[in-house]
Amino acid sequence: MSLGEFSLIQRYFTDHSRHTGPYPAKLGIGDDAAVMEIPPGMQLVQTIDTLITGRHFPFNTKPGDIAYKSLAVNVSDLIAMAADPAWFVLSLTLPDSDESFLQDFSDGLFAAAETFSIELVGGDTCKGDLSVTIQASGLVPRNHYITRGGARPGDRIFVSGSLGSAATALAALQGRLTLKPQQLKELLLALNRPKPQLAMIPLLRQYASSAIDISDGLVGDLGHILNNSGVGARLEKSTLPVCDYISAMDNYDLALYGGDDYQVVFTVAPSAIGNMVKQTQADALAVTEIGVITDQGYFLQDAGQTIDLSSKRGFDHFGH
Amino acid sequence: MSLGEFSLIQRYFTDHSRHTGPYPAKLGIGDDAAVMEIPPGMQLVQTIDTLITGRHFPFNTKPGDIAYKSLAVNVSDLIAMAADPAWFVLSLTLPDSDESFLQDFSDGLFAAAETFSIELVGGDTCKGDLSVTIQASGLVPRNHYITRGGARPGDRIFVSGSLGSAATALAALQGRLTLKPQQLKELLLALNRPKPQLAMIPLLRQYASSAIDISDGLVGDLGHILNNSGVGARLEKSTLPVCDYISAMDNYDLALYGGDDYQVVFTVAPSAIGNMVKQTQADALAVTEIGVITDQGYFLQDAGQTIDLSSKRGFDHFGH
Repeated sequence: MSLGEFSLIQRYFTDHSRHTGPYPAKLGIGDDAAVMEIPPGMQLVQTIDTLITGRHFPFNTKPGDIAYKSLAVNVSDLIAMAADPAWFVLSLTLPDSDESFLQDFSDGLFAAAETFSIELVGGDTCKGDLSVTIQASGLVPRNHYITRGGARPGDRIFVSGSLGSAATALAALQGRLTLKPQQLKELLLALNRPKPQLAMIPLLRQYASSAIDISDGLVGDLGHILNNSGVGARLEKSTLPVCDYISAMDNYDLALYGGDDYQVVFTVAPSAIGNMVKQTQADALAVTEIGVITDQGYFLQDAGQTIDLSSKRGFDHFGH
Repeated sequence: MSLGEFSLIQRYFTDHSRHTGPYPAKLGIGDDAAVMEIPPGMQLVQTIDTLITGRHFPFNTKPGDIAYKSLAVNVSDLIAMAADPAWFVLSLTLPDSDESFLQDFSDGLFAAAETFSIELVGGDTCKGDLSVTIQASGLVPRNHYITRGGARPGDRIFVSGSLGSAATALAALQGRLTLKPQQLKELLLALNRPKPQLAMIPLLRQYASSAIDISDGLVGDLGHILNNSGVGARLEKSTLPVCDYISAMDNYDLALYGGDDYQVVFTVAPSAIGNMVKQTQADALAVTEIGVITDQGYFLQDAGQTIDLSSKRGFDHFGH
C-alpha cells in the first residue's frame, strides 16, 4: 500500500502521542525546520549516525529494533560527552511506504525516545535501500562536557555495564557459535535494544577525565582516548565485565573487538576514585575498573602474558 | 585505493582548512559529538535532508555538485525559517572510499560551507549506495522565526530569485526538451549549484507573515503555507519570474511544479509591502510579487483562464 510522503510522516511520526522529554521544542515537526530554546548556561552537543541494513543490523531485524537501536547509538554518543539527550531528527530511507513496517518502526522509535527522554523534532523520508540516519542533540552545563582528550597517566580506566553481549549474539545469529535458547534470547536484547545508561551522565560530569562510547569495540574506542590524550594504557583481562558465555569459553575477543556495546569507557584521576565509587554504589551503577592509563604503549595483561594491542583495531566501516 | 574510515575522515574533512562562519564551534570534528555555544537571545533551528543518487540527482552528477547541493538544500530550509546558518553534520554513505571522489566531494562541500557561512562540526561515514544526509543548524533571535502558518487573506505572495531553471535543466538532461548549449550551461548551474539567498533572512524576519522554501515545486510548497495557515491563494501566471526558455515556450509547468528551485516563497501583509519593496531595492534583492492570499481556494490566473490548483501537487517522494 502506498501513502504519499506527507500523509506518511503525518500518520506515523507527527500524530504519534510522543514523549517530549525535559526540553520541549518550541516548534516541532511540520515546518521547514524545528525551533528549540537552549536554557541559559547550557551548551549544545550534536552527533549523527547512520545505520544501514545488512551492515549495522542483519537483514531480518525487526523494524522496531532497527528504530530503537538507531536512536540508542546516538544517545550513547551524547552520554559519552556527558550531555543530557534533548532532541533528534530522523532521515528514513525506505524501499516503499509499507505500513506494517512503519507502524513497527514508529513503535520502536518512540519506545526508545521515551526510554532516553528525547524528542523527535523533524525528519525526512526518501525512497531507496533501507537506511536510518539520526542526528541527536543534547545539552551540557557550560564546559562540563567530557572529551576523549583528558586522560592522564595514572588515571584508572572504567567501563559501564558489560562487554561483548551484542557481539556474542551476532556471532550466534551468523552461526559462528552456538548458544542455549535462553542465553541467545538475553543476548539478543543487548544486540537489538542496547541500553546506553543515562544514569552515567552526572557521574561522568563529576569524575571523568575522558570518555568515549564503545560502538566499534573496547580496544579500538579506548584507542581513540589514548590517541587524543597522548597516553598509553594497560588493561587487565581478568577484570573485564563479560557475559557468562565469554568467560566460560574464554572467548574475550568478543568483548575486546566486538563492537555494538554502547557502554561508556572513561578514565578517572586516582584522587577522585574513592568518591566516584561511593557514588556508583549509592546510585547502583554497574561500573568496573578494567585498567590504568600509562605514559605510552597499549597492552592487555592476561595472567602471565602481555598482549600488545597497539596494532589491533575495532570495527572500521571501510577498513575490511 | 582503500583508506580506513578514520584516516578518510581525517584527510578529507577534518584537516581541510575550513570556513568556520560567525559561530565557531567550541569542539568540532573528532570526538563523540560536537559542542556549540548558543548566543544569548537566540533560538536553535534544525533541519535534515537526504539526497540519494539517481533520485535527487542524476547518476553522473559530479561529486562536488552533489556535496554542494546537499548543503544548499538544508541552508534553504534555514533561510525559509529566517535563521542564520551556523553548523552542519554530514552522514556520507559511499560504495567505496574512492579518493578522487572524496577530494571532489570535499571541495564542493567546503565551497558551499564558505558560500553559506556554515561550519562542518561532525559526521559519519558508511559503506553502501551513494547517499548524503546533512543536518543543518541555524540561529534566530528569540521568536523571530517565520513559519508556514502565518499567512492572512489580503497578504501578497512573493518569491525570491527565479523559478523553473533547475527543472528545465533536468528535463534537458533527460532528453525531454532541447536547449542551446549556452542556455543549458547556465541552467545546469541552477540545478547543480543552487543558490539559496542568505540576504533574504533579515527581510523575512522583518516583513514576512509566512515563508517556505521551494524544493518540491511552487504549487506544492505554497500549498503547505495555505494548509498550515488555513487560507487560499490566487497566483498570476504572467508575473512568475521564469527563465527565457519557459516564457518563450510557454512551458510554465516547469516553474509551477518543477521543484529544486531552493528559493523562498513568502507572504507580506499589505501594510508592510511599501517598506519591504524599498528594502529589496536598497539591498538589490530579486523579489517578485506573484499573487495574493485569499480566504479559500487555490487558483492560477492565466489571462482570461482560471486554473484550479487545489488538486495539483509538487514532487512527492512516495506519491509517484
